[in-house]
Amino acid sequence: MATTHYETVPEVAGDAVSGSPDIVVMKFGGTSVADTEKITEVARRLVRAQEEGRRVVGVLSAMGDTTDELIRLAHQISPRPHPREYDMLISVGERISNSLCAMAVHDLGHEAISLTGSQAGIVTDTVHGKAKIAEVRATRINDALDAGKIVLVAGFQGVSADSHDVTTLGRGGSNLTAVALAAALGAGACEMYTDVEGVYTADPRLVPHARRLPAVTYEEMLELSASGAKVLQLRSVEFARNHDVRLQVRSTFSDAEGTWIVDEEDPVLEKAIISGVAHTDCEPLYRVRHIDAARLFERLAAANVNVDTILQVSSDEIVFSAPVEDREACEELLGGLDVEWSMRDDLGKVSLVGAGMKSHPGIAAQAFATLGGIGVEPEVISTSPIKIACHVRTEDVPKAVAALHDAFELGAA
Amino acid sequence: MATTHYETVPEVAGDAVSGSPDIVVMKFGGTSVADTEKITEVARRLVRAQEEGRRVVGVLSAMGDTTDELIRLAHQISPRPHPREYDMLISVGERISNSLCAMAVHDLGHEAISLTGSQAGIVTDTVHGKAKIAEVRATRINDALDAGKIVLVAGFQGVSADSHDVTTLGRGGSNLTAVALAAALGAGACEMYTDVEGVYTADPRLVPHARRLPAVTYEEMLELSASGAKVLQLRSVEFARNHDVRLQVRSTFSDAEGTWIVDEEDPVLEKAIISGVAHTDCEPLYRVRHIDAARLFERLAAANVNVDTILQVSSDEIVFSAPVEDREACEELLGGLDVEWSMRDDLGKVSLVGAGMKSHPGIAAQAFATLGGIGVEPEVISTSPIKIACHVRTEDVPKAVAALHDAFELGAA
Repeated sequence: MATTHYETVPEVAGDAVSGSPDIVVMKFGGTSVADTEKITEVARRLVRAQEEGRRVVGVLSAMGDTTDELIRLAHQISPRPHPREYDMLISVGERISNSLCAMAVHDLGHEAISLTGSQAGIVTDTVHGKAKIAEVRATRINDALDAGKIVLVAGFQGVSADSHDVTTLGRGGSNLTAVALAAALGAGACEMYTDVEGVYTADPRLVPHARRLPAVTYEEMLELSASGAKVLQLRSVEFARNHDVRLQVRSTFSDAEGTWIVDEEDPVLEKAIISGVAHTDCEPLYRVRHIDAARLFERLAAANVNVDTILQVSSDEIVFSAPVEDREACEELLGGLDVEWSMRDDLGKVSLVGAGMKSHPGIAAQAFATLGGIGVEPEVISTSPIKIACHVRTEDVPKAVAALHDAFELGAA
Repeated sequence: MATTHYETVPEVAGDAVSGSPDIVVMKFGGTSVADTEKITEVARRLVRAQEEGRRVVGVLSAMGDTTDELIRLAHQISPRPHPREYDMLISVGERISNSLCAMAVHDLGHEAISLTGSQAGIVTDTVHGKAKIAEVRATRINDALDAGKIVLVAGFQGVSADSHDVTTLGRGGSNLTAVALAAALGAGACEMYTDVEGVYTADPRLVPHARRLPAVTYEEMLELSASGAKVLQLRSVEFARNHDVRLQVRSTFSDAEGTWIVDEEDPVLEKAIISGVAHTDCEPLYRVRHIDAARLFERLAAANVNVDTILQVSSDEIVFSAPVEDREACEELLGGLDVEWSMRDDLGKVSLVGAGMKSHPGIAAQAFATLGGIGVEPEVISTSPIKIACHVRTEDVPKAVAALHDAFELGAA
């Protein structure tokens, strides 16, 4: 048993999912809108897209540390801020950045309108802090697009169907807003602007000749994200896959082509066997004896631990890994159970990812031989149809990444 | 011809104007919510009112300089920020303070809910930046009050009836929100918390033995506000008068009784002949010859100049005064007209205000004799049924205020 868990994602019931390939949703993260000059730059990019004949929807994150500052205020007031009020508070950052960007678009001589999550028709459930999008009622957006406006939507937020309260979507919420809008509008593409130029065959800090990938499949991106590539959160990729939204990761600060994230059948794919090598420097590994798996993972889920790899090789021992951020929660939980357990925090994870792996059975053998050749012995190995992941000692991670990258000839030609 | 101009105020069409005298609307200005400690203090005050058996609606301004900071951002982006987007932007400050206060109330063990202007049903026209309240749809507030919650409403903002856009109400907007809510809810009182303890017989900085007035009439308060008392803006007092809302000006930082602002017939009034002496240190006075009054004041209104006193004593000369903030606009306008004009900026205004003046014809004579007795000669005199206002040299303002205050025995007993 070896598996990677993805969050279950919601359905989108949009008004007009018939498809308008001339619509593009362009999402800009916090570093892309850190100050008013950068926001003006984003406005220019939106205007350029409109001048190229596209119908443009922008989704901006909050400026730099605005949301952190609001969170700081909340914790000055209360040790456990009331969830409804917390969402009301921390959702204002996106309203600020999007209205400022709309002003900048107006000054460039184009029409724009900024909409809150509620005004944009992002209807969610009532789970404050990690609401799920239930529906996108895109009437107002469509009307504004029809009127020739660039539409700016405050990311990360929605309105609850029952109580008409402001909700937030949790980490990566603005990405999710962008993808959900692209799905509801039937957009031709959802462009994710960030501070890197796309998805690489490996982390360029470890492998200087790593190559930007022109395209990867949703499944590859999910494995890469789960394996440490920080470019996109699982949740938005999963959502895009479920609703056939073509994603493109691009740099805010250059005109480079970026990386497409698309369906296996998409013509943009170059169908390489291996797409890349992802890694995490530290991913604690837990061994637990004498416990029922169902009981253990129910408890871990209840404690919001994002379990990554799960392995069971005998009836009385379960091995799992979880991100280093969840270590405290794991230890507290395991300490409270009447079980024998141990934890290692001197391991990282190296993952070889590629959709072509499915039909090439020799890949695993070649990967293990490569690691053996540089004297690296995996502590734990787990696989999926398109991924081979090895927990190795943290100090061995860089050379393992470089060796795999070379062995599979992933570098620039 | 001598008159004081008040802004025309809108009607309130509320859901339930039948009257719930146990409802109190408590409004707190920016200095009262300058930091999270002060917001927690406000929360305690709201809770105390609820514990006394009242149904409590709080209206908080934005914290300290939040709104100024947002305005600064807008002007970094654009020399003339788009009005719709500007309102979207600058209305977030109240959302922050009110949600923080709701968290603090929760931590005190009481239920609270913060509402945006839109959620609170503050429906306005579409004049961004100075919208007028058209209607208050108080269903959601009433439901929350029925559920035992303390309701916090973001002041200064509403939602436009036609376009569902966020609007702001202009200067003093949060006061207006509070009064409009009190009217719509039929509240027993609208308490305005500020950094002074009420309305005084004169500015205590000029007259140390000035006395806090337990109550004044709407008309007196309007004259006092127009004459330089900074406690409340004309607009909210006018609104309160038109909708029979009993106002009380109180200090956020003490439990002092404050000053009631009520109808002439209200039992709380002590029916003094003179209530107080208001003043402004500088109020420029303009003399314009050879112009039609209608034409002049149309042009001044179009330039948003808040003309205070207007006097005409011969067919070819008009005298008027306007606040020092409007001086540039006035000079530009007069310079562009083909007229002979002059301006004096070495004058201030001292005003004696009292509802009892109407039935006491000797007051004016006594006032002029008092000024004459200390060698102060008014440059211009204007009166209303409850006010006598004299423009005097700026350096004479303090002694004129003190002399009138003594002559009419307004000080503490």
